[in-house]
Amino acid sequence: MKHIISVLVENKFGVLTRVAGLFSARGFNINSLTVGETEDPTVSRMTIVVKGDDKTLDQVKKQLNKLIDIITVKDLTKKGFIDRELLLFKIKVNAENKAKVAGYLDKHHAKILHSGANSITVEFVGDPERVLKLLDELKEYSISDMVRTGRIALAKE
Amino acid sequence: MKHIISVLVENKFGVLTRVAGLFSARGFNINSLTVGETEDPTVSRMTIVVKGDDKTLDQVKKQLNKLIDIITVKDLTKKGFIDRELLLFKIKVNAENKAKVAGYLDKHHAKILHSGANSITVEFVGDPERVLKLLDELKEYSISDMVRTGRIALAKE
Repeated sequence: MKHIISVLVENKFGVLTRVAGLFSARGFNINSLTVGETEDPTVSRMTIVVKGDDKTLDQVKKQLNKLIDIITVKDLTKKGFIDRELLLFKIKVNAENKAKVAGYLDKHHAKILHSGANSITVEFVGDPERVLKLLDELKEYSISDMVRTGRIALAKE
Repeated sequence: MKHIISVLVENKFGVLTRVAGLFSARGFNINSLTVGETEDPTVSRMTIVVKGDDKTLDQVKKQLNKLIDIITVKDLTKKGFIDRELLLFKIKVNAENKAKVAGYLDKHHAKILHSGANSITVEFVGDPERVLKLLDELKEYSISDMVRTGRIALAKE
């Protein structure tokens, strides 16, 4: 099962490595990981998507809670949450298919950052379902240079 | 000086920890780090923003290139690049200031995901300058639950 874990950490040297290391040591494969600032500059929030069983994850959560510099650990998976991911990528186009590709992008509310003769640079934000739908629609085209942030999530009230 | 490093890695167990560990070992403070999938499911791309001097960074790049599972390491800082970050957060509002806050959000092209009596949930994508401008405009309001992806970047052609 995929879990989406939100970890609030003190913005200190080496915290990221220690947290990522704990998951690796327990055999979790990290699907995505982001770490960025919060409204408090001394605190960062990590969002980690991992695949693994509930029991092992409980152990990891307990170990995380024991680490210095960890403020809170929340598994958002079973609570209501809003999640989004940001993607940047390029699509190869030519004179014949450019308008069609632009039409797909528009339909999915993707943003065209740059439109050249041979490629379109795209910015897209969506939840995992919307990301899958867009990429599925574009699968017959050649996508390159893709960068994804991985998912971030916010607990619903 | 801040550097934005793009690292293409084989999507294998423990790569993230090894890469983050290398930066930590050299005394780099990681400002943000994201790792997500690419157009090739066996390959992930890490985007790392670090502060440090050019000489030490060159050493880190050399060491990264020696690691198994590292495909390419690029410092985008000195090349042209497009960078974006995604933010999710909540702002406390009340009956008096809600319309004003919504006006600010609209002006900055931020997206309102949920609008309640006491808070607005916001999605925002921008480059570092736009992110700073939005947060500056909102600084008199109480922002909470902020999650940021950290920057991702794409080299220009």
